[in-house]
Amino acid sequence: MKLFRTLISLEDAVKIVLSYAKRTEIEEIRFEAALNRVLAEDVFSPIDSPPFDRAAMDGYAIRGEDSFGAAPRNPVFLKINRRVEEEIGAGECVPVATGMPVPKGSNAVVMLEYTKERGDTLEIFKPVTPGKNVSFKGEDVKKGDAVLKAGKLLQAHDIGMLASLFKITVKVYKRAKIGIISTGDELIDPAVQSFTDEQKQQKIADANSYVLAALTHKIAVPYRMGIVRDNYDEIKDALRSALEGDCDGLLVSGGSSVGKRDFLADAVEELGELVFHGVAIRPGEPVGFGIVNNKPVFVLPGYPVATISAFELLVRPFLYAMHGLGEEERRRIFAVASKKIPSAVGRTDFVRVKVLRTGEGLYIEPLRVSGSGILSSMTKSDGFVVIAENKEGVAEGERVAVTEYFTL
Amino acid sequence: MKLFRTLISLEDAVKIVLSYAKRTEIEEIRFEAALNRVLAEDVFSPIDSPPFDRAAMDGYAIRGEDSFGAAPRNPVFLKINRRVEEEIGAGECVPVATGMPVPKGSNAVVMLEYTKERGDTLEIFKPVTPGKNVSFKGEDVKKGDAVLKAGKLLQAHDIGMLASLFKITVKVYKRAKIGIISTGDELIDPAVQSFTDEQKQQKIADANSYVLAALTHKIAVPYRMGIVRDNYDEIKDALRSALEGDCDGLLVSGGSSVGKRDFLADAVEELGELVFHGVAIRPGEPVGFGIVNNKPVFVLPGYPVATISAFELLVRPFLYAMHGLGEEERRRIFAVASKKIPSAVGRTDFVRVKVLRTGEGLYIEPLRVSGSGILSSMTKSDGFVVIAENKEGVAEGERVAVTEYFTL
Repeated sequence: MKLFRTLISLEDAVKIVLSYAKRTEIEEIRFEAALNRVLAEDVFSPIDSPPFDRAAMDGYAIRGEDSFGAAPRNPVFLKINRRVEEEIGAGECVPVATGMPVPKGSNAVVMLEYTKERGDTLEIFKPVTPGKNVSFKGEDVKKGDAVLKAGKLLQAHDIGMLASLFKITVKVYKRAKIGIISTGDELIDPAVQSFTDEQKQQKIADANSYVLAALTHKIAVPYRMGIVRDNYDEIKDALRSALEGDCDGLLVSGGSSVGKRDFLADAVEELGELVFHGVAIRPGEPVGFGIVNNKPVFVLPGYPVATISAFELLVRPFLYAMHGLGEEERRRIFAVASKKIPSAVGRTDFVRVKVLRTGEGLYIEPLRVSGSGILSSMTKSDGFVVIAENKEGVAEGERVAVTEYFTL
Repeated sequence: MKLFRTLISLEDAVKIVLSYAKRTEIEEIRFEAALNRVLAEDVFSPIDSPPFDRAAMDGYAIRGEDSFGAAPRNPVFLKINRRVEEEIGAGECVPVATGMPVPKGSNAVVMLEYTKERGDTLEIFKPVTPGKNVSFKGEDVKKGDAVLKAGKLLQAHDIGMLASLFKITVKVYKRAKIGIISTGDELIDPAVQSFTDEQKQQKIADANSYVLAALTHKIAVPYRMGIVRDNYDEIKDALRSALEGDCDGLLVSGGSSVGKRDFLADAVEELGELVFHGVAIRPGEPVGFGIVNNKPVFVLPGYPVATISAFELLVRPFLYAMHGLGEEERRRIFAVASKKIPSAVGRTDFVRVKVLRTGEGLYIEPLRVSGSGILSSMTKSDGFVVIAENKEGVAEGERVAVTEYFTL
């Protein structure tokens, strides 16, 4: 009897895969292409921002103290000086537009709405305190400040920050190239041709490689490498040629349990080292991990939900580490369990849940767990709860951490 | 004195823009290109999935009741029948591999690990209940079931579902084409050339169009159309030619307040209809909305943070509605305010916050709010809190809804 090597805990499995995660290379790209990339350098501001004291509103630059006491029926009168480059004195004002420098001597801008010009005299109907409506030099960012730190996942406003600093190129971690192979005599590729109804009845569509490509896509560059038959030599050749290419890692699904046709783990062992095979998670237990040609190979279960579970629990942390991201980038919310979720001690459970948003807060409801072939348990769910192996389920009313799949 | 028309409430502004949101056209694309797209049809299953009762494990198909009482020291013996197409009878078993049909008459699979072959006889060391390790026909999806509904934002496992149903093409909402224009004499484009230090000191980098393109990118297709000077005719020409093209909408930033150079609202009014101008939000108050050539035009403030605020509060709901998505796709979490956040009644505040994840739950801390020119208040924050206009700030310890910027 061939059995799994002892199942290891998820915690140990994560530690092991992370110890093999090599950071990808650093590349320099244009700032406008850097959305959702991970910064690989600290970005210092080469300039003060704003670069000068500037008007934050359209109106008149004044010494704020000159406007004290102004009111609609009791305007303050100031002398209009139209030479913005001159220093202004007491009782003077200069017209300014938003974003333009304010003249020396001024310390506030009174908004256009609260003024009226009469020849060379300005009437002010509302006082402004010194500092009001002026953005001072270096107020946003001081020259030499680290405004964005290495490891940051760049978002829309970070791209804006790079633009505002004239930082045309930026160093980021290269997106790893991840090969994806499905194995199984029963599989056909739904994308490559049209199949007859009879073929569709007798064979199974390869969903795994599309799911894995979509999951990988958010972090790295997936390469779908097709379907390999359940033949030991074909599998070995496929793994070898995939890993001799420029892939940084490989996800192989199907045939990861210990049946007769389960050549994957053996092939990894023969080509390199099988580091572990079998983790106490459900679904996803038959997941394995090895190193071939110094490159990581994840051996994933054939069932889509089991593959997704193994991806979320092991592959994703690995890919994050390769790109300099911490687990915390996969943000969790807290929600209250609306019913009991049973789970056995000794294994980690990946439970699909619906998230209900109410005025009272967030609630979750587990979906009927009916085996890892049941892809509809994923498509009906909004996220998942991980029940740790030392925990005997979740009680009704208990607050748990939930990972949602996607947020725009 | 030219003043804003009366400020309208955010609630009214959202209602108005949504009433102008026309759903984009429907296009049919390949399933593997549909990640993060919004489904525009119900997808029914043309097949049962699994299409037949199939083995969920490698092992032997049996009648589960035949294994009762089996134990390591007390195996049950069954007769091996190697013709999988035959119906099996009591006391018989058939070797099966994961994913393969199980023969008629069988109702369970005993895992390989718990068996031993001796010639034509199988020893079983562990009982299985009927139904165990078999995925029954239609268990995942029944023929004719709506497995994915119109309006769903397609995620990795949904792509897998489409694959598993051999659904090669799928109807989705077209991504709208959104033009983006920045206006302002003071602006230069940081991407188009290298500027001298002196130019960088005297001019301001156009960050807005890059921020708006990045924010739009997640939902629609942004077209950056460059910088237009503060000249009424140039602005009018730019708006006209942008909207005569195949854009579905336009975001114009800069010059949206009521100073002398603020020609944008006037140009919209002259070319079409300015529906509103001025909303009680901070930052972002000068935001306007109009219709030109039957197309929506958002007039956005010149300051990046004000533009982001107006985008999140008004443009995003509009873009979601164009693509058939509800506001709920912008998922909110709940967190406890670690300090008081002041806010005035009568306007809606967009407050940038840091989110702290602790074992006790989530906390937020507001960032120093220092004007809408301060882009670093965005880059240092993890998300934002919207304080409704009828609410006088948030008390320390109060639980509030937070929108985080991004989740991988």
